[in-house]
Amino acid sequence: MAFHPSNLSVEAPSGGLISEVVRLAGLEIAQPCGGQGRCGRCAVLVQGEGARRRSTIRLSADDVAAGYALACQTVIEGDLLVTIPPQEQVARRMVTDRAARRLELPFPYHPAEMQTVRALQLRMDAPSLQDNADDLTRVRNALASAGYSPVAFPLALLRRLPVVLRQAEWSPRVILEAELATGSVIPQGPLPARLLEISADHVKPVGLALDIGTTTVTAYLVDLASGDVLSTAAEYNGQIRCGEDVISRIVYSGKNGGLAELGELVRETVAALLERLERRTGIPPGQIHKVSVAGNTTMIHLFLGLPPASIRLTPYIPVANQPEPVMAGEIGLGVHPLATVDCLPGVASYVGADITAGVLAAELAETDLLTLFIDVGTNGEMVLGNRDWMVTCACSAGPAFEGAGVVDGMRATQGAIEEVWINSDTLEPTFRVIGEGKPRGLCGSGLISLLAELLVTGAVDRAGNVKVDLGSPRLRQGQHGPEYVVAWGPGTEHGRDIVLTKVDVDNLLRAKAAIYAGFSVLAESVGVSLSDVQQVLVGGSFGQYINVEKAIQIGLLPDLPWDRFRFLGNTAVLGTYRALLSHHERQKMRDLARKMTYIELSADNTFYNAFTAALFLPHTEMHRFPSVAEVWERDGGR
Amino acid sequence: MAFHPSNLSVEAPSGGLISEVVRLAGLEIAQPCGGQGRCGRCAVLVQGEGARRRSTIRLSADDVAAGYALACQTVIEGDLLVTIPPQEQVARRMVTDRAARRLELPFPYHPAEMQTVRALQLRMDAPSLQDNADDLTRVRNALASAGYSPVAFPLALLRRLPVVLRQAEWSPRVILEAELATGSVIPQGPLPARLLEISADHVKPVGLALDIGTTTVTAYLVDLASGDVLSTAAEYNGQIRCGEDVISRIVYSGKNGGLAELGELVRETVAALLERLERRTGIPPGQIHKVSVAGNTTMIHLFLGLPPASIRLTPYIPVANQPEPVMAGEIGLGVHPLATVDCLPGVASYVGADITAGVLAAELAETDLLTLFIDVGTNGEMVLGNRDWMVTCACSAGPAFEGAGVVDGMRATQGAIEEVWINSDTLEPTFRVIGEGKPRGLCGSGLISLLAELLVTGAVDRAGNVKVDLGSPRLRQGQHGPEYVVAWGPGTEHGRDIVLTKVDVDNLLRAKAAIYAGFSVLAESVGVSLSDVQQVLVGGSFGQYINVEKAIQIGLLPDLPWDRFRFLGNTAVLGTYRALLSHHERQKMRDLARKMTYIELSADNTFYNAFTAALFLPHTEMHRFPSVAEVWERDGGR
Repeated sequence: MAFHPSNLSVEAPSGGLISEVVRLAGLEIAQPCGGQGRCGRCAVLVQGEGARRRSTIRLSADDVAAGYALACQTVIEGDLLVTIPPQEQVARRMVTDRAARRLELPFPYHPAEMQTVRALQLRMDAPSLQDNADDLTRVRNALASAGYSPVAFPLALLRRLPVVLRQAEWSPRVILEAELATGSVIPQGPLPARLLEISADHVKPVGLALDIGTTTVTAYLVDLASGDVLSTAAEYNGQIRCGEDVISRIVYSGKNGGLAELGELVRETVAALLERLERRTGIPPGQIHKVSVAGNTTMIHLFLGLPPASIRLTPYIPVANQPEPVMAGEIGLGVHPLATVDCLPGVASYVGADITAGVLAAELAETDLLTLFIDVGTNGEMVLGNRDWMVTCACSAGPAFEGAGVVDGMRATQGAIEEVWINSDTLEPTFRVIGEGKPRGLCGSGLISLLAELLVTGAVDRAGNVKVDLGSPRLRQGQHGPEYVVAWGPGTEHGRDIVLTKVDVDNLLRAKAAIYAGFSVLAESVGVSLSDVQQVLVGGSFGQYINVEKAIQIGLLPDLPWDRFRFLGNTAVLGTYRALLSHHERQKMRDLARKMTYIELSADNTFYNAFTAALFLPHTEMHRFPSVAEVWERDGGR
Repeated sequence: MAFHPSNLSVEAPSGGLISEVVRLAGLEIAQPCGGQGRCGRCAVLVQGEGARRRSTIRLSADDVAAGYALACQTVIEGDLLVTIPPQEQVARRMVTDRAARRLELPFPYHPAEMQTVRALQLRMDAPSLQDNADDLTRVRNALASAGYSPVAFPLALLRRLPVVLRQAEWSPRVILEAELATGSVIPQGPLPARLLEISADHVKPVGLALDIGTTTVTAYLVDLASGDVLSTAAEYNGQIRCGEDVISRIVYSGKNGGLAELGELVRETVAALLERLERRTGIPPGQIHKVSVAGNTTMIHLFLGLPPASIRLTPYIPVANQPEPVMAGEIGLGVHPLATVDCLPGVASYVGADITAGVLAAELAETDLLTLFIDVGTNGEMVLGNRDWMVTCACSAGPAFEGAGVVDGMRATQGAIEEVWINSDTLEPTFRVIGEGKPRGLCGSGLISLLAELLVTGAVDRAGNVKVDLGSPRLRQGQHGPEYVVAWGPGTEHGRDIVLTKVDVDNLLRAKAAIYAGFSVLAESVGVSLSDVQQVLVGGSFGQYINVEKAIQIGLLPDLPWDRFRFLGNTAVLGTYRALLSHHERQKMRDLARKMTYIELSADNTFYNAFTAALFLPHTEMHRFPSVAEVWERDGGR
């Protein structure tokens, strides 16, 4: 067996594992999970026929096809050339894949048919005593010749008109928003439009896709003529200081001046993003002529200044699920004041435009496969369906998966432990930290990973009890009851131990039970079994970092073959980007929102039963998790 | 002959004049013109058959039918009972007539078909877990049931919606503006609309008709449900301090901050009017949901903040003759911020919405008679035509008829001499002063009256020379050349003599020549003679006070039988009132504006010739003024 890049060649006994030979040869290979085939970090490139893969967990089909294998799960049966890639490359692969998927243009773009915001140059004759039409009529006639009529002419532009026309020597450039017909019929005759800009200078139509998350606001700056994403930026929602979840923001909005303050805070966040985008692209915010906005229903209410009070009180009624477009100037958004700000349609108080946008991006309405779409954040929103029907619900998972309500929880930023492996024998952990520095706490994916590892290694039992009697110093009675120490103080950023307590475990248990109960209710409501689901599409930025295997192990995701899961990244902003670019996609979104049947869980008795049944790891009904049951049996039912 | 109210009875010789008998009886009767039948102030009520009227000048047909006669022009032929009305009653008659005509509802009003702004009460079910439609959808459905769809829902109302709906217990009252179809076809199916108000309280739709004159702003507060004029108010345009005519305002608007200041000033004027209207009616400005606005093109530009610079430079191009409606909030007008502010359509830089509105009110487009419509102010705007065609032009008369550019000129306010009579023998004047106090100066109608009297009595010749050699102390060489003294210093408000100088006469001559030349060009442009004109409709507040006879004598108005002249008062605000109330009238106005062919006089050589020919009293071509020629001949060609 030969190694690359060391050029070492060794005799290796047939029947041994590559990982054993690597270690015998004195070479280093990462094995955070202790060689149990769980972490995927010992991936190597194998050339030659003499290898039998016992498991390819954590490797994509592409990776396997390219010759990758897990060193700890691959048995040597003949001659091999083994290349050990650098650790960073293994880690980076995943990230690169995600990024590529995110920036990929997700649909064919034909601006001439799809884009409502258009730039054109008009030509007209100068006025004379014989041809004394007023400036407005002259421009209207030129617009009609170009195919646009009637054209709404905002007062702000009319006020600039005489100077611009004369500066431009009667050939001004304009940007307008055309009113494309609903349906796919190509319109006969001129298009109604609204003028957005008239200028003697060159102007290009630029748009902004905005996803206002409770925690994070994401913006894509988009060239509307080409569809190119010019730059992207994300920033914490400045409203966080007024409460971490939607309920506390709604309460805050009811205080004197609270609603106005929350609106101001999110506009400041957007302003910061716009400033960053301008620094990177040179495009000032005033050149943005169209903004499409996704967000949960509460975020959209706060963005538009709509009082959200009724959202949190039974029967949970929003002011508007499908608000009409407004002009940026009306809400004080610092883009072009005449820019259309189009808040995308939501379905109900707890299934908002972010989900509709996600469903659009995930192309749920275009598939024949029975699909479960989920977006897990503070709330778990989910949609079950296909091109013919869709049911949706939201369950209040609480902020545990966002790191809140957990002793050492934190958001997925610098210093967060995002993945954990525990050695089955020693119960010693290995972990990956965002930013590669010392750990400061555990983010959502880290919590899922840790809980799954604790369960699989027997440090936590199926009821969520922390087993302090296993003889490991990591398991102890702490200040808050039984706990597991992930990192000792001397190795952490702040010098304190990072732990997961019994109380934390209970919080996570309730959170995952609420989400799984949501799945169950949706499936029951249409009379299908969760095991019939043909694909699971995971959206949301949190979803990007979930480890499927571990999420299934704790019963957060249904137990389906891993290849049925697809991680789509921030589907809300992707769908918003589509709606920004294409009138047709925007219409599809409206239709989607209408098509989705909302199930209010608080009005549904079956939810409470399903929730209670799911308050176990992975579930009280083990038959729902056959793959976990199998591992259980193999490992002796720990 | 018997007198009332004195109960005096006298023998009167047959063949004598009533005025002589009155004086012989020792009774008082006003004869400012010296018994020449020119002033109409000696009107008496005559009962019995024994009277022969030589002339009924200055008496209306109605007055004559009622038995009125001029004492100085009525010959006694038998028994008579003569009632001498108090002076004030003679004066007041005219004023009362005018006022009645102004407030009369000028057309049949059917709000259900004509009015776009409507109030209704909606009824809807309260939401529940089973019926969890959002607030907006609930209101939209109720509006659709009431026949309105789609309904634009302004953000400001959406922000109040949840509170209002719950306060109103799901039966809110709304005010909306329906989009009525163009043409007279009654629409099938629901009407598109825009919501203006939603409230738990009773709301009634109120509108404002606004005429923004260069000098005076006039407002009618109108109940849109009944068409009733609730109150009217007028106020000087606050912009006067920035210039008295449109040209000086345009120049001012080009200074730094000038345009904004002029806009602010007219809004302040409107605010003062609204405050006065609120005091009288109890209706706050915030309840005004629709505003229709007339004004000359420059006034409309300044009101909307459109730079008017090109209006005064060849080829005289306005930014917009027919600006689109705006919302009150956009221009800072202190009515309901969502109220539609509809600036009515004009024709060209110098034929504005005030003229279109005037033509509508004068029903020029509904007559078969060849009609001349005129509105004399700083500019003389005029329209010639009938239901089939119309030509229009404007000539810069200058401000002489508004009292500016004349030594003792002033606006028609308190202390202005508005009518003058001169005794042919003594050349001593009698005059009527607005407000009945001491005179301060001469207003437009006073100037016309004075010039005519000076001409008829020979104190001024046909070329406009002041004849200082007639031996009257009233005629003298003054500081500014030859002049006539209308009032001696001891009898005036300010203690100075009030005079009309040769320079003043030249100014008036140029002003009247410009206007008459306008008539001539219009008539020539369509190949008719001015003597073919079947009716002359005089609009504008200045027009109300013109004495036709005297205006003809100086050649300001064409020489037609007096019964062809009709004084319509402020036609601009009357037409605006119609457009405010009726969608159909508003459409007619748009059609009118399109139908009117504008003749730019500065591009027309015939204008200069016509102007030069008219620089004579009444005109170089005396055959154009046969009635004046006749008086001339009778009085020996003075």
